[in-house]
Amino acid sequence: MKLDFDEKFMHEAIKLAKQGKFSTHPNPSVGSIVVKDGEVVGKGFHLKAGLKHAEINALEQAGNRSKGATLYVTLEPCSFKGRTPACAKAIINAGIDRVVVGTIDPDPRNSGRGVEMLRDAGIKVLTNCLEVETSKLVKGHIKRFLFGRPYVRLKLAMSLDGKIALSTGHSKWITSEKARSDVQKLRAISSAIVTGVGTILHDDPSLSVRLQDPDLPNRMEAMSVERPIYVLDSRLRIPSHSKVLERSSTVLVALEKRSEEHQYENEILYAKKKSGRIDLPSFLNELANREHSNVLFECGATLAGALVDEKLFDEIILYVAPKFLGNNAKSLLMLPELARMSDYERLEIKDVRKIGDDIRVILSSKEKRAKDD
Amino acid sequence: MKLDFDEKFMHEAIKLAKQGKFSTHPNPSVGSIVVKDGEVVGKGFHLKAGLKHAEINALEQAGNRSKGATLYVTLEPCSFKGRTPACAKAIINAGIDRVVVGTIDPDPRNSGRGVEMLRDAGIKVLTNCLEVETSKLVKGHIKRFLFGRPYVRLKLAMSLDGKIALSTGHSKWITSEKARSDVQKLRAISSAIVTGVGTILHDDPSLSVRLQDPDLPNRMEAMSVERPIYVLDSRLRIPSHSKVLERSSTVLVALEKRSEEHQYENEILYAKKKSGRIDLPSFLNELANREHSNVLFECGATLAGALVDEKLFDEIILYVAPKFLGNNAKSLLMLPELARMSDYERLEIKDVRKIGDDIRVILSSKEKRAKDD
Repeated sequence: MKLDFDEKFMHEAIKLAKQGKFSTHPNPSVGSIVVKDGEVVGKGFHLKAGLKHAEINALEQAGNRSKGATLYVTLEPCSFKGRTPACAKAIINAGIDRVVVGTIDPDPRNSGRGVEMLRDAGIKVLTNCLEVETSKLVKGHIKRFLFGRPYVRLKLAMSLDGKIALSTGHSKWITSEKARSDVQKLRAISSAIVTGVGTILHDDPSLSVRLQDPDLPNRMEAMSVERPIYVLDSRLRIPSHSKVLERSSTVLVALEKRSEEHQYENEILYAKKKSGRIDLPSFLNELANREHSNVLFECGATLAGALVDEKLFDEIILYVAPKFLGNNAKSLLMLPELARMSDYERLEIKDVRKIGDDIRVILSSKEKRAKDD
Repeated sequence: MKLDFDEKFMHEAIKLAKQGKFSTHPNPSVGSIVVKDGEVVGKGFHLKAGLKHAEINALEQAGNRSKGATLYVTLEPCSFKGRTPACAKAIINAGIDRVVVGTIDPDPRNSGRGVEMLRDAGIKVLTNCLEVETSKLVKGHIKRFLFGRPYVRLKLAMSLDGKIALSTGHSKWITSEKARSDVQKLRAISSAIVTGVGTILHDDPSLSVRLQDPDLPNRMEAMSVERPIYVLDSRLRIPSHSKVLERSSTVLVALEKRSEEHQYENEILYAKKKSGRIDLPSFLNELANREHSNVLFECGATLAGALVDEKLFDEIILYVAPKFLGNNAKSLLMLPELARMSDYERLEIKDVRKIGDDIRVILSSKEKRAKDD
């Protein structure tokens, strides 16, 4: 009974957390609620890095009613001063009597210390309330701190017969407008976009975030967040007039440092090499070091095939357009063929639905299900 | 108001009609209800060719209460003596006062004459009640009589990357057991299965109907219906020990009559030739002549590609297994590539859902939507 009561409020806090899902990078999305005598007296969520944390917003709304109240928060309150002061201290100062925490923060600067601080101050703390649901809110954050890599989403779009472009290279547009606008949301929940130079040479996309649906939570804030684009370009072939280079945050990922001067004003990240190509695992480690918890790969068949082959993705978002391109058109992935049918790695279908005139399938690798979903 | 009242009972009749959807071939599925003073006094559906029609079953259940009652029937009652006596006559004899008809029977032996007979006998007749829903029940029947071809379903199964087999040919099994059991239902709603000799040479399937779900309506009746298998085998290469040849109803479809004796005991249908191959449109005409209203193509990439290329299918049922086979594996369709991206024929997604661990997509060509759905 007690737990059901707590879970009800934690559900509210989860809903609040989602208000920030497009805009908190590199911070995780967090929601918080202050409850006094069974009544909600304060609500808050984290909107943007540098702005107040969820708990602070909830406490400020509650004001004096925080005294003796219960605070619900989806992620363990921070015990350290980062971009903003420690929340655990603020909770103590506000006179909160009891704290219910969803997920323990995997950030090593915190990692249980927030809870410890609260308990040391005599506050009753319940942890792991709706842990599955609350950890889903921050799966990128968890992946980054526990595994040193971002949560990797791979976006793919293909025809019914598994093709991505005609052999002439024409690929605009396989999917319909609604599917393409759905991709904007994938970009928005990411803190970085990764692509290959082939995609730039071929399509010259801007890869920017354009959220047109006015109902999306905190749309303008979401669009204002800087999401660096990483272009894997071993030999620095990217034309200097490419659209992605108009943004100073774009990073070129090359293989070898050249002695000669190069023409680019953008940062160049020299990646580790493996079998003559950019070593993807260590590149992903580097993205985590750069505080990227969620990255979206929007790339061609070669890079996508490598991600799949090396099992480096957490989630595939596949858009399927209901048309056939014919069997000489270009295939979805450059991927070595299985030796036997039994060798496949079966993926888990997390969601399948119509998006406009197309189909969207969200898949994750089965092994990771327990952890990620 | 009156119409809503009628629609309510017609909905009941539609539900009844579906009880026969697996077993009425070559007849259409029909449901009927007799209503006296607002109360249902008789229910009936057609179960199997040769057995009583829906109206007769409903009238028999109603007995004397048919006098002055309203009879609802999803398809126009027959005016002619076929395998069973004319239903229109039975309705008149039962003293029915009013008849509500869903769809007018496109069978030229009927085609309005059933309604005419009733009206001539002084019975009030309302036609086209829930016409869209009732015509969906008999879309194969409509296609056969109005267009001289069966309703063609094409079943396809592929991996996420649009492959159907490894380059070694191994394809067992791409999809999971639940998807394969779903295919059994596709077979069951068909009155004939069409395949190519390549599939026989490769997989030697039995293509029989095995309905295991005990909840399926009239399962045993459905399995007892003979569904001929047509094997497109231009040059009669099918091995005489093939499983499909164990059934005497299997028909081999060849191109040229050979003077020499052949080894097969099965019927051989000599098809028209076009560009050295079996002419599919006239083969489909022949299937309609043979009273096949619904046929299922379960075949390989060549025949499937030809059906798609010649736009001869009404519906594609595509099973997608959530795994990758790699880009050297065999592609879904042998289909000429589009010249331009704008040349595609966009299909309509009628349904998309998870079936077990796989995805099932049902598609129809957009042009046909108004007619078929």
